[in-house]
Amino acid sequence: MTTKRIADYAEAHRPIVEQALEACLPQAEGPAARLAEAMRYSVFAGGKRLRPMLVLLASELCHGEQRIALPPACAVELVHTYSLIHDDLPAMDDDDFRRGRPSCHRAFDEATAILAGDALLTLAFQLVAAPPCGSHAAAFAAELARGAGTQGMLAGQMADMVFEGAEPTAEAVDFIHRHKTAALIATSLRLGALAADATQPTVDRLGRFGHSLGLAFQITDDALDVEATSEQLGKTAGKDAASGKVTYPAVFGLPGSRARARRLVAEAVKELDPFGAAAALLRDLADYMVQRKA
Amino acid sequence: MTTKRIADYAEAHRPIVEQALEACLPQAEGPAARLAEAMRYSVFAGGKRLRPMLVLLASELCHGEQRIALPPACAVELVHTYSLIHDDLPAMDDDDFRRGRPSCHRAFDEATAILAGDALLTLAFQLVAAPPCGSHAAAFAAELARGAGTQGMLAGQMADMVFEGAEPTAEAVDFIHRHKTAALIATSLRLGALAADATQPTVDRLGRFGHSLGLAFQITDDALDVEATSEQLGKTAGKDAASGKVTYPAVFGLPGSRARARRLVAEAVKELDPFGAAAALLRDLADYMVQRKA
Repeated sequence: MTTKRIADYAEAHRPIVEQALEACLPQAEGPAARLAEAMRYSVFAGGKRLRPMLVLLASELCHGEQRIALPPACAVELVHTYSLIHDDLPAMDDDDFRRGRPSCHRAFDEATAILAGDALLTLAFQLVAAPPCGSHAAAFAAELARGAGTQGMLAGQMADMVFEGAEPTAEAVDFIHRHKTAALIATSLRLGALAADATQPTVDRLGRFGHSLGLAFQITDDALDVEATSEQLGKTAGKDAASGKVTYPAVFGLPGSRARARRLVAEAVKELDPFGAAAALLRDLADYMVQRKA
Repeated sequence: MTTKRIADYAEAHRPIVEQALEACLPQAEGPAARLAEAMRYSVFAGGKRLRPMLVLLASELCHGEQRIALPPACAVELVHTYSLIHDDLPAMDDDDFRRGRPSCHRAFDEATAILAGDALLTLAFQLVAAPPCGSHAAAFAAELARGAGTQGMLAGQMADMVFEGAEPTAEAVDFIHRHKTAALIATSLRLGALAADATQPTVDRLGRFGHSLGLAFQITDDALDVEATSEQLGKTAGKDAASGKVTYPAVFGLPGSRARARRLVAEAVKELDPFGAAAALLRDLADYMVQRKA
C-alpha cells in the first residue's frame, strides 16, 4: 500500500521531471558538443529522481504551484548528478560504474567528466535564476548554495576524503553523512517549501524532516553496500570497506546501523505531525527510503 | 600616464576587493578545514583582480553603487579562480605551477583541488544571491551562469580539449578564445552595468566592449606564452605549443596575432564613444591589457 502510493506518485511525476530536465540541458552541437553529450549521459542514466520528487512533494504540501517548484526540482537533480560525476573520478572514489553503466569519465574521459560536472552545477543555478522563478531566484540560489557548498555537501565530501583510512568514529561518520548527503536532501524539502512561499517555521520544519530522512537514507546506502551485490546496486558493492571509507556499519555494526536509520525516520516523520493526512506521501517516502533494496 | 592612471585605480580598489574576498571565503576549521585552505590558497595567490576591476569600473561608469557591484565583482574572480584550478588538473592542462607557486592540486592533492574548484563556483552564486544583491540576484546569477557555463567559458574549455593536437584553424581558435576567455570578461562588464541598473542597450554595449577586450587579452596571453620566460609568467612558458594547443600564434603567426589584438582593442574602445571622457579608465585598461609583459 505504502509502496504502491509512492510508486504511483513517482510514475505520474517522473515524466514531468524528465521533460523539464530534457528542456534545460543544452543540445549536443558545435565544437563543444561533447560537453552536452556527457551532461546528458549522466543526467539520463536512470536515476530515481528522489530529490526532485521531494521538492515537488514539499511544494504541494504547502499549496505551491508546480511550475515554480519544477526549476529548483531539476536544479537539485543537476547538483546531485554533478556530485556523482566528480565523486566517481579517479582522484576521488575512482568508480568505474554508476547505475549499472560506465561512469562519466569511463564513458568519455576525465577532462570531459570534470567539465560536465562543472557545467551541471552552473546550469543548476542558471535554472533557478531564470523565469518563472524571478522573485524566488535569490532564495532558491541561496538555499541551493548552502546545501551544495562548504556548509553542506562539499564539506561532507572533503571530510570523506580526509577521514579515509582513519579509525572510524561516530563523530566522523556523522559529520560526513550529515553534510555529504543529508544537507542536499534537506535543501530539496526547503526548496519546495520556498517555492510555495511557506512561512520560515514551515521551511525549517521541512528542512529538519529532510535532514533526518537524508541521514537515514545514507545509513541505508552504507548498509546496502555491505549487504547487496553489485548487480543489485548498479555500482561496485563492498567498495566502502575496501577503500577504507568511514561508514555507519563500520562504527555501529549492521544491525545497529539499521536500527539507527529506523530511529531517524521516526524522528523525521514526527516533524510532519502538524500537516496531518496531507503529508501521507512524504511519510510513505520516508518508509520506502529505509526499506529499499537498491 | 595611461598606465599610471590605471595603476592608481588598481591600487586604490584592490584592497576593497581583497577584503570582500576575505570576508566571503569560509574559515579553515572543522573536519573540512582543508577545503577552505585550498580555496584560500588559490584565491589569494596574487591574481591581478582584473575581472573585479572591470565590474567596478563598469558600475562606476553607469553611476552604480559600489556595495552592489562588489559581490558580483568577487563572484567573477571566484569563477575565474575555480576555472584555473580545474584547468591545471592533470586530466586537463596538467600544470604544476600557477602564478609562480605550485598549482592547487600540487600544493594539496587532486581530490582537494576538484572540490575546491566546485566550492568556489558554488560560492560565486551564493554571493550574488545574498544581501545586498537581493533584487539583482536573478540578473546577476543568470549573467554569471551564461558567461561561465555551456554558453560561455566551459564551451571554450571543452573545445580547447577537443581540438588539442588538431590542425589549428582560425575558426577553432576563435571559438575557443571567444568562449574560454572573452565570455567571462564580457560578463564582468555586463555585471557592472547590471549592478548600476543600466539600460539593456548599455549592458549590451559594455558586453561587446568586454568581448573584444577579452579576445585581445587572450591573444596577448598566447603571444606572451611564446615570447616570455616562465619566470616572467609565473607559469610554465611555451606550454601551449608543447601540448598541441590551438593558439593564435600557431594560426596567424606572432606579428599577425599582435596586430589582431591591437585591432580588437580599437574595436572595443569604439564601443566606449558614447560615454566620452567618463570611460577614460576603461580605455587605459584596454591599452594595458595588450601592452602587458606578463
